[in-house]
Amino acid sequence: MKELPLSKAFQLIEPGPVVLLTTANKGKANVMTMSWHMDVDFTPLIACVVSNGDYSFEALYKTRECVIAIPAADLMKKVVDIGNCSGKDTDKFKTFNLTPLPATNVKAPLVAECLANIECRVTDARLANKYNIFILEGVKAWIEPKRKERRMFHANGDGTFVVDGRTVNLRMRMTKWQAII
Amino acid sequence: MKELPLSKAFQLIEPGPVVLLTTANKGKANVMTMSWHMDVDFTPLIACVVSNGDYSFEALYKTRECVIAIPAADLMKKVVDIGNCSGKDTDKFKTFNLTPLPATNVKAPLVAECLANIECRVTDARLANKYNIFILEGVKAWIEPKRKERRMFHANGDGTFVVDGRTVNLRMRMTKWQAII
Repeated sequence: MKELPLSKAFQLIEPGPVVLLTTANKGKANVMTMSWHMDVDFTPLIACVVSNGDYSFEALYKTRECVIAIPAADLMKKVVDIGNCSGKDTDKFKTFNLTPLPATNVKAPLVAECLANIECRVTDARLANKYNIFILEGVKAWIEPKRKERRMFHANGDGTFVVDGRTVNLRMRMTKWQAII
Repeated sequence: MKELPLSKAFQLIEPGPVVLLTTANKGKANVMTMSWHMDVDFTPLIACVVSNGDYSFEALYKTRECVIAIPAADLMKKVVDIGNCSGKDTDKFKTFNLTPLPATNVKAPLVAECLANIECRVTDARLANKYNIFILEGVKAWIEPKRKERRMFHANGDGTFVVDGRTVNLRMRMTKWQAII
């Protein structure tokens, strides 16, 4: 994995792909599938919803650290299967043959098989009790430049998923946003 | 527009498409382009980020109402152009030939040209001051069944956009989620 400038990390979240969220609690790594998340600013601050029914909730709440890993389309079935079991009784890294790589700033691992990883710290968990919302700050980002399959995929919420299709370049029309893009 | 069961409205947000947000403040309708939003629960509660630099911020904060309209890929250039000007000095519905339709529960208009619309009330604006985050509750949803182009599109945050490609049906693998899908 190669370091990605942190100023570009929001671009991994903005398209709304299905992602993986890794945590490490009491020395035990876990990973869940997540589809409810958004950018909050360009730092990046990222908001995500982790249900208090999820095993990852406690890990995130207690350790205040995680990694958001962005899978590509070739991992779609595996990502769905990860979302169908719990870290409570399953070692998901082992079960799904995922390779945990050490992160630099957090104890939660990167996922070697993914297209990109964002190391995050929880900066605000006050919304977790009422809304299951965590505010994360991305502190380091990684990209895998050698990966062939680079299309992300999105959950339709009905058991179907849509793979990225054609990319359209409209940079010249983004007159207000030239400083960011 | 045909009514869509509210229980399915979260499925319009989960894939993370670029959307439009309409407001109506002091009798004046406005529309902005938005790409930072997520589901919070299946009600649906939806979180979104509207910058306090946006003209829509005040309208949303004061009226506590809006409509999230989901455009399809044939509206992509228009949606980008909507994001490059402000309701402060532009009548965007007129400028961009959009047709405002009356909503049932809110004063903000539906957008006739869009694939779907969700009427929303702001249920929590306490996070708006610190994070520009609004918590919305969808109160009525609409779908246009006759529209031919139904592909959504997603912002990459760099001036490029990705159009929905192939849909993959993995319903049978979603063993934990059969009650929802």
